[in-house]
Amino acid sequence: MATDTNPRMHPGTGLEGISIGPSDIGLVDGENGQLIYRGHDAEVLVREHGFEEVAHLLWTGRLPSAEELAALRATVYASMRRVAEEPATLATLDPTALPMDVVRSAISMWAQSRHLEEGGTPADAQAALGAIAGAVALLGARRAGVEPGAIKDEDSLACNYLRVMRGTEPTDAQVGALDAYLVLTAEHGMNASTFTGRVIVSTASDLGSGLVGAIGALKGKLHGGAPSHVSSMIDEIGTIDNAEPWLREKIEAGERLMGFGHRVYKTYDPRARALGEVAERLGSDDERLGLARHVEQTALRLLHEYKPDRRLYTNVEYYAAAVLETIDLDPGLYTPTFAVSRTAGWTAHMLEQMAYPRLIRPQVDYVGPMPG
Amino acid sequence: MATDTNPRMHPGTGLEGISIGPSDIGLVDGENGQLIYRGHDAEVLVREHGFEEVAHLLWTGRLPSAEELAALRATVYASMRRVAEEPATLATLDPTALPMDVVRSAISMWAQSRHLEEGGTPADAQAALGAIAGAVALLGARRAGVEPGAIKDEDSLACNYLRVMRGTEPTDAQVGALDAYLVLTAEHGMNASTFTGRVIVSTASDLGSGLVGAIGALKGKLHGGAPSHVSSMIDEIGTIDNAEPWLREKIEAGERLMGFGHRVYKTYDPRARALGEVAERLGSDDERLGLARHVEQTALRLLHEYKPDRRLYTNVEYYAAAVLETIDLDPGLYTPTFAVSRTAGWTAHMLEQMAYPRLIRPQVDYVGPMPG
Repeated sequence: MATDTNPRMHPGTGLEGISIGPSDIGLVDGENGQLIYRGHDAEVLVREHGFEEVAHLLWTGRLPSAEELAALRATVYASMRRVAEEPATLATLDPTALPMDVVRSAISMWAQSRHLEEGGTPADAQAALGAIAGAVALLGARRAGVEPGAIKDEDSLACNYLRVMRGTEPTDAQVGALDAYLVLTAEHGMNASTFTGRVIVSTASDLGSGLVGAIGALKGKLHGGAPSHVSSMIDEIGTIDNAEPWLREKIEAGERLMGFGHRVYKTYDPRARALGEVAERLGSDDERLGLARHVEQTALRLLHEYKPDRRLYTNVEYYAAAVLETIDLDPGLYTPTFAVSRTAGWTAHMLEQMAYPRLIRPQVDYVGPMPG
Repeated sequence: MATDTNPRMHPGTGLEGISIGPSDIGLVDGENGQLIYRGHDAEVLVREHGFEEVAHLLWTGRLPSAEELAALRATVYASMRRVAEEPATLATLDPTALPMDVVRSAISMWAQSRHLEEGGTPADAQAALGAIAGAVALLGARRAGVEPGAIKDEDSLACNYLRVMRGTEPTDAQVGALDAYLVLTAEHGMNASTFTGRVIVSTASDLGSGLVGAIGALKGKLHGGAPSHVSSMIDEIGTIDNAEPWLREKIEAGERLMGFGHRVYKTYDPRARALGEVAERLGSDDERLGLARHVEQTALRLLHEYKPDRRLYTNVEYYAAAVLETIDLDPGLYTPTFAVSRTAGWTAHMLEQMAYPRLIRPQVDYVGPMPG
């Protein structure tokens, strides 16, 4: 029973390198810095397709026709509108609570109100996407103290999302930037939240229970909770001259730099590259972006100097923060917005898991005392 | 990338035999039919100690003094009472909804109202236990249409739980039987719901998020969702004469018999043995228990006849159903009551996981297409 003699022990308790099985949904190629969704390179998809099309791709394996896209949006937006009509769900949308707690409670009430007993269908996945987008957008309106804007069938989810939370019309540039963010963060292999959803539905539980668990996992700062910390870091650094001394002090104190390093990517994160390009195109605040670029270059140089063996590169959170800042999103809604996009990937994985009705149940090695 | 050439592939996707690391909390010895909580045999504990003492043991590694037990109960009952005072939590307690959905939403709102940002403490675990016991008991009162009974500091959790949900005084025999059930189902190693909680808090998320995920996993019929199905099976069989033909028909049709077989136990489940003894002692409905015993013996004989290689024995759910039936618990609350007891084990495991801040993140093997 000693922990050091069991050949199956993973002292880090992280299940690193262990596969839970085959999947058709996404490939995260950490060595080559490539992200594939159902056979499509995400960096290509983001230039040619919108988020709802990518969600359809993740759910079904192919991009939608114009008719399929319209039908998908109709289902998603009907569900988005319904959030405002359910008193028990509305009661969860407390603007003074931690936003990810609100999202978790709202989706639990949404699933409860639908009596989701077991399993799930692609229609449930569409409704779930609408429910989470609706809940976060309404929460945003409450946090901002504005009257929620209207949802229009002909507009993209990104456009409706911003309009509901602001009560005003977003610009095309803002909609395009948010849409690119949603596409690039929709799916990312067997991360902790996606895994959580798969474990939950492996018991024959329902899609709503899986989503609620995934939201709880994404809340953790080691997973989804960091993008607003990148903004805080850049705020704290403040000027180009302050970047190197500030970063050296943090690295020498052994602190982790927000927005750098990833468990899987051992090269530049392709999502960071694509979001960096989006931030450049937006270019509405050149000074801030210039500072972010300078902080990035300095951080990469210093990380290479101090930790040459670690292969630490810019990760998605760094330019996610830059993009979400530029479209002026409430920083409290960065992680909830990540939850909206990842709902596409989460639900695709849960639907796939439901096709293998096999409990996910590993072991632990008991190292406590035995009865005397 | 082919699935059959990867030596780490687990085609069942169940992580069978894979350890997530060392743990001091519980040992499920499936070969010898023994269940150990922190060095104590659960079958001995149940004869000598109550549920709150066992919860203290799971959280701290030792049984409490009389003063520690009183302090623990004060914290648990304060939290149990608070559920009735929070409008947003009360709004989740819909008596017409699926009970496990209600429990999930109520605990999400409880955690939200406490602003649990990250991690957790033993005091949070005590408060969580009170919150879930309070939510299920109040839901029970609403489902029964009765005025909730009072919570008394000097009584056990089992006694207060039954009094709140019935509005009347439970008998000592009923309290003792429920307490034994709570002790025997408080902890069971790395089952799917406990694992879910550990994955969620491995991201540095909070105890409330982990609990909500665990509740969602327990909802699934392959995990916590079966005890009421055992009652339905015995109802359907109805008479001793009908047992053999009914069971033969189900087995020959390839259906799984509820209450038999377990992923880990390859012998008689020690919890079933202990709960069977509790049911005998209760003996309030001898005819029903006699039928249950006869159905069990017949099922074991037929399972051995049809599937001699499978080592299928009675599991905990079989006599859990007998005990919960005998104390006249609403069958819709069997799985929620299981969630109450398992909250002790879930929170003990989450507190242990938080001491190893390492993301639990396995892999999948992408077997979908590649960009052309």
